[in-house]
Amino acid sequence: MQHGSDFTPYYAVIFTTTRTEADNGYHEMAARMEELASEQEGYLGIESARNESSRVGITVSYWRDLESIKKWRENAEHQLARKLGKEKWYAHYQLRICKVERVYGFEA
Amino acid sequence: MQHGSDFTPYYAVIFTTTRTEADNGYHEMAARMEELASEQEGYLGIESARNESSRVGITVSYWRDLESIKKWRENAEHQLARKLGKEKWYAHYQLRICKVERVYGFEA
Repeated sequence: MQHGSDFTPYYAVIFTTTRTEADNGYHEMAARMEELASEQEGYLGIESARNESSRVGITVSYWRDLESIKKWRENAEHQLARKLGKEKWYAHYQLRICKVERVYGFEA
Repeated sequence: MQHGSDFTPYYAVIFTTTRTEADNGYHEMAARMEELASEQEGYLGIESARNESSRVGITVSYWRDLESIKKWRENAEHQLARKLGKEKWYAHYQLRICKVERVYGFEA
């Protein structure tokens, strides 16, 4: 997602995770959650990266406001995915809800 | 970095990058910048991940307040690294300064 600073403030959810070893349907569910998130009211974009060696990943999703984040959190399919995440896919995670105040970009 | 929600608000700098192909000293400089950042007043922690295939990476650094971020931005060695980043290492980047309002954690 690319935004000029004139769009601020908006919101970012920083989801930092350490994956367990087994896949157990993880990749399929992660793809489904990205698709489902993108259909939600107030969704602005998503960025994701994972180190294969350390199994540490960071996914940042961007939202128009706190209300959009709350509704996405209450989505039934998303709730099931979070339950499975705790049971099977994540050894550890931190989730941070942030207000994006300033944005700077660079394009070579 | 792990924080309970009682530490909020603090600040996050989300640095999303797409790397060029050549290393050209990138890994050495990235390690040096992590070390130098950790010595700054107000530094709370850093998290980083990169997809090897897409070359997309996300680094999130955490800071006590906006003043700490400003001072780190003005650090001379960091300024040189940013200049080299634009010249050599990044095809594209976005930098977002965010206020962390809420934190949730999970440990298996």
